[in-house]
Amino acid sequence: MDVVNYLLGYENIKIVQNTEMFNFSLDSVLLPNFVTLNKNINKILDIGCGNGVIPLILSTKTNAKIIGIEIQKEVAVLANKSIAINKLENQIQIINEDVNTWYKKIDNEEFDIITCNPPFFKINELSNVNDSIYKTIARHEIKLNLEQILIISRKLLKNNGILSMVHRPERLLDIIVEMRKNNIEPKKIQFIYPKEGMDANILLIEGRKNGKPGLKIMAPIYTHNENGTYTDQVTKFFS
Amino acid sequence: MDVVNYLLGYENIKIVQNTEMFNFSLDSVLLPNFVTLNKNINKILDIGCGNGVIPLILSTKTNAKIIGIEIQKEVAVLANKSIAINKLENQIQIINEDVNTWYKKIDNEEFDIITCNPPFFKINELSNVNDSIYKTIARHEIKLNLEQILIISRKLLKNNGILSMVHRPERLLDIIVEMRKNNIEPKKIQFIYPKEGMDANILLIEGRKNGKPGLKIMAPIYTHNENGTYTDQVTKFFS
Repeated sequence: MDVVNYLLGYENIKIVQNTEMFNFSLDSVLLPNFVTLNKNINKILDIGCGNGVIPLILSTKTNAKIIGIEIQKEVAVLANKSIAINKLENQIQIINEDVNTWYKKIDNEEFDIITCNPPFFKINELSNVNDSIYKTIARHEIKLNLEQILIISRKLLKNNGILSMVHRPERLLDIIVEMRKNNIEPKKIQFIYPKEGMDANILLIEGRKNGKPGLKIMAPIYTHNENGTYTDQVTKFFS
Repeated sequence: MDVVNYLLGYENIKIVQNTEMFNFSLDSVLLPNFVTLNKNINKILDIGCGNGVIPLILSTKTNAKIIGIEIQKEVAVLANKSIAINKLENQIQIINEDVNTWYKKIDNEEFDIITCNPPFFKINELSNVNDSIYKTIARHEIKLNLEQILIISRKLLKNNGILSMVHRPERLLDIIVEMRKNNIEPKKIQFIYPKEGMDANILLIEGRKNGKPGLKIMAPIYTHNENGTYTDQVTKFFS
């Protein structure tokens, strides 16, 4: 069932979601608040944009053109509904295609920034077999894996362009290895912790194409207080 | 000038320091509190042990034999003075030799754990030229670099043995690359932040020889409160 929600805190932007599909989560809200934006950014690509939450939030922070690419037709339809409701057709374009075939048709060095909230799990970690195909494709590296994201980013990013991703801390080593293999130098990392005293459960990482070495580990973000409520650090992204 | 200080909080252990040399710092106190110890540990190597602070603290936590190796003669003399004052000659042995030549004479797979608070800076980052030679060797990769530490660890660690290091967050990527190159799989990382809201300034990292992938990012440690005093997280290591 399609449901229209307000994307709280983002100038009354509305988002269309479907209960059978993968709905946007905290990951997708953290990423557009993490990525390094500036006034000179002209073109952003969001790989695997889902129902468009990252492009929608980015539209409140930049005037750059944003392309979202989504392999699943029904999910891309939702993204387009949200763009229409918010009258953002001039800024955001959704492409319903497999990014692995699409990128080959695109000129090199076309984008200033690539964002991605990719499938987190390796195929051998397939678990919730009762999930819908929509959720399985969004969560597992069936249609898109880390290596492919980095090869695509290496081709499509301008010199010094940025790849900004949200992922799981367990995959940090794989991400770093793939980034360096493709001349994308990790420049800033932020870990998200569910509570004080617990291990990190979300990773934000950004690299620059042909960037100089020099990594920053930013101040941590905690999502929940001791009593289970959201922290101020997180609610500021929603209100 | 030699000065005898109490190593606060460690069962009245005393440590001999010299004002011209590199005195132990928070780094050396954090590492022996980070490393994964258990009852089956028989033999620990501390590479570049300086005045022996890591072996001294470890002696309060394990009955394992501890070897500290230190290239600088005058610094090794200080370590031996501390061991004598604390009557720890049966547990700790200091070897005054270059670890890069020493390790070739040692059997493979001799140690359960290797700890190291190494020189942090690349040679091209040589800066404080007015520093004493003692401090320069302790801080810069003149006599010992990351690649060498990993080659030594690969040879001397038992299967599933642990390499535990304190370093700077800027070097995280180099460390991970060198660890993986030498079949030492990073298993846990902890970042130390000077204050809330600031970037991390110390990195603790531990890998296992031939370990399975699976990385944990542990809860952060903050060293200072807003008002500049030490936090409880840090003072517990000293009292």
